[in-house]
Amino acid sequence: MKKYDKSKFKIKWLSSSTSDAWLKQAIEHPIEVLIDHAHCERKAAGVALQLMFRYLCEPGLSEVLSPLAREELEHFERVLSLLSSRGQSLKQLAAPPYGAVLAKNIRKDEPSRMLDSFLVAGLIEARSHERMSLLALNSPDKELRALYKDLLQSEARHFCLYWTLSEERFERRIILTRLEELAQIEASALSKLHPYPRFHS
Amino acid sequence: MKKYDKSKFKIKWLSSSTSDAWLKQAIEHPIEVLIDHAHCERKAAGVALQLMFRYLCEPGLSEVLSPLAREELEHFERVLSLLSSRGQSLKQLAAPPYGAVLAKNIRKDEPSRMLDSFLVAGLIEARSHERMSLLALNSPDKELRALYKDLLQSEARHFCLYWTLSEERFERRIILTRLEELAQIEASALSKLHPYPRFHS
Repeated sequence: MKKYDKSKFKIKWLSSSTSDAWLKQAIEHPIEVLIDHAHCERKAAGVALQLMFRYLCEPGLSEVLSPLAREELEHFERVLSLLSSRGQSLKQLAAPPYGAVLAKNIRKDEPSRMLDSFLVAGLIEARSHERMSLLALNSPDKELRALYKDLLQSEARHFCLYWTLSEERFERRIILTRLEELAQIEASALSKLHPYPRFHS
Repeated sequence: MKKYDKSKFKIKWLSSSTSDAWLKQAIEHPIEVLIDHAHCERKAAGVALQLMFRYLCEPGLSEVLSPLAREELEHFERVLSLLSSRGQSLKQLAAPPYGAVLAKNIRKDEPSRMLDSFLVAGLIEARSHERMSLLALNSPDKELRALYKDLLQSEARHFCLYWTLSEERFERRIILTRLEELAQIEASALSKLHPYPRFHS
């Protein structure tokens, strides 16, 4: 089994940096962003489980995706609990186009579908990580800064994990070419700030 | 919030006991039953998550179903790991009709759909618990006896949990009437031993 060797190779997931406008919007609407964050965590668990169910007999996949799904659910519960402590609860939020745009670009045929699914999941984790870092540093709310700081490290592990799953199954050259294409699409989906305050607005 | 008071009220989930024929079949095919068990655990996690996603804003539901899904995934990983230690791995198995028969009997309109979903999930947990108890006592394989014994207690908590979710939202009289109907269907689905050795054959 090939392993991603951190010492020799650093992957650049994101092809753009988050704008100051997003950070301002997120800081001005902390509860809405927190509710959206809860949704992001449960959706990330859902994606991990969906991939595990789709590729059920792929060796070494369930062993990675099941603990990942559990961790996403733990984060979901943590955000729920913080919301509850502030008298808030989960509610439906209109989603920004981000997730749908990325999902639409996952190719339909195997094995491209598997690679694209891993890369899209990794890109979303990488963007969440970047934005959590911004909030961990810049949120004026001490409790939120602490929450984002705690969750950061897991998010970083998550996109590494999707990289490893890819590299165990595809040539690095093929992965990097496709990652660049998807990263452009991801950046483009965020190029104009969405009017609703969301984690991926 | 109403709570199920164990001291005053004992719920009888199952309307039939597992046959000696099933136990004999399961003991004769431990690996096949173990692989099927792994599938049962991942499907149980999937059901908990599916219910959580469907009734996302139902107060107090995510807080219960998310940890439940995590626990089912933990069991899934534990069974995977035991399979792996014996040189076995997950593989697709033809499913017995059990799950499909029960799913077909979940009514389509709300709130009946919610109640039936809780009761069907609870019935499956109750049956798994009953059969794990049999294997924990009767399996000739020491390691399997220990596994089933460990998992038993969680399974018992799981069907209590589905009872509590029901009782928080529906009248006891209505729940018990519907449970009796579904329990008859569940028992009938198992009345003739399925030729494939499965947890719910």
